[in-house]
Amino acid sequence: MSELFQIEFKVRDYECDMQGIVNNANYLHYLEHTRHEFLHHIGLDFEKLTREGILLVVKRIELDYSLPLRSGDSFIVDCQTQRISPLRFGFIQSIRRLEDNKSIATARVIGTAINRLGRPFLPPEIDQAF
Amino acid sequence: MSELFQIEFKVRDYECDMQGIVNNANYLHYLEHTRHEFLHHIGLDFEKLTREGILLVVKRIELDYSLPLRSGDSFIVDCQTQRISPLRFGFIQSIRRLEDNKSIATARVIGTAINRLGRPFLPPEIDQAF
Amino acid sequence: MSELFQIEFKVRDYECDMQGIVNNANYLHYLEHTRHEFLHHIGLDFEKLTREGILLVVKRIELDYSLPLRSGDSFIVDCQTQRISPLRFGFIQSIRRLEDNKSIATARVIGTAINRLGRPFLPPEIDQAF
Amino acid sequence: MSELFQIEFKVRDYECDMQGIVNNANYLHYLEHTRHEFLHHIGLDFEKLTREGILLVVKRIELDYSLPLRSGDSFIVDCQTQRISPLRFGFIQSIRRLEDNKSIATARVIGTAINRLGRPFLPPEIDQAF
Repeated sequence: MSELFQIEFKVRDYECDMQGIVNNANYLHYLEHTRHEFLHHIGLDFEKLTREGILLVVKRIELDYSLPLRSGDSFIVDCQTQRISPLRFGFIQSIRRLEDNKSIATARVIGTAINRLGRPFLPPEIDQAF
Repeated sequence: MSELFQIEFKVRDYECDMQGIVNNANYLHYLEHTRHEFLHHIGLDFEKLTREGILLVVKRIELDYSLPLRSGDSFIVDCQTQRISPLRFGFIQSIRRLEDNKSIATARVIGTAINRLGRPFLPPEIDQAF
Repeated sequence: MSELFQIEFKVRDYECDMQGIVNNANYLHYLEHTRHEFLHHIGLDFEKLTREGILLVVKRIELDYSLPLRSGDSFIVDCQTQRISPLRFGFIQSIRRLEDNKSIATARVIGTAINRLGRPFLPPEIDQAF
Repeated sequence: MSELFQIEFKVRDYECDMQGIVNNANYLHYLEHTRHEFLHHIGLDFEKLTREGILLVVKRIELDYSLPLRSGDSFIVDCQTQRISPLRFGFIQSIRRLEDNKSIATARVIGTAINRLGRPFLPPEIDQAF
């Protein structure tokens, strides 16, 4: 597994739903943004790849929610890589509340890359990173 | 397992990201809306429960993405129930493209219910439904 | 002004924020989806235009909120066109609650079209439609 | 008018739509988050007010889009207050790209406060702040 990459977020109130806690779908946003920042950190630009016709897509997500995030919470999202198969790459991610370091959620996200024709195509940079 | 409950959606363009396909997080929105409509169908009102201090929360999501949804696509999201444990209830859900009935995604979503103190509290209606 | 085009929506619970009412930003989503369906109705495909390098973009929004939408509400969003200037086209839109026909919001949305270089470029179909 | 309050954001890729630019609705999210942080800065907690049954709601938005935000852009959103009437308070806001200080958007947002019965009720803290 790779070194740990992490970034800090703060809950934005529009991310909370009528229960007063962050809606379950927004955790995928936090996880995705962290992955894209990680990719950028290792020299891969998601937008540039997209313009070149290489789509990095999610194939599977496993996400365990432990504690809800609320208005005002700051939290850390991290990201480690894990090679799954020749064409599949994984991200092990977790979300921790900054105030008390409690685990909010853990996730495993498996992705692949396809070209404009929908065919699997793993760019060499991805291949080397995982 | 319960009878199959299903509703129809159409992709809204704002749900697509720069790749021109529906962003991975929006599938959780489709799945949630279908679950809430299903709960309503069996006599459970998510909003009313929330106001009464009973929060139905997601504990785990497993989501497999097969094919991406695109602008203009209509699709069916379904929902079946599955009892997991005394305090956990599951939803087996799938998303199929209407045009050709191809599978877009399949998911297993596990939920529980908590009261205002964060303690597990399964309302009898949920208990009976699963 | 053009004929009235309208479509029906139902609030999805994830669109509500901690106040238990639809978050202000989601009204822009409803309005946009209605505009894109309207454009499709008159033979203009937003996604196809995007792929061809013609970007229809919003330049100004004026939005008055009268009453909040809540969980369970069904509502109608409509769309009429209004020519603003050679390069600007307007949409007059309103949102009404289905149950009692009460006005929820009214909006004026002004758009333009630009090409890949960021230069104004109004496709003839838009020019004729407004 | 009040002093200038401002915070920094960075575009998250999920905020971009198929045009490769930030979707128009997400600007309302940026503006709202900045207003809530500003309110917090002057001692008003949006979530606490909500729990106490005081809803700060948007009545009108005027938003001019100048230049689109793209993947990777960092930007500053600011917020100044402007009293509109006894029951209405305004926010003058702008979004500037950090790299070149170019104006991305300017907005005027008018809000009011209502209690649980939907009646206007301006908390003294809001009254004093504007």
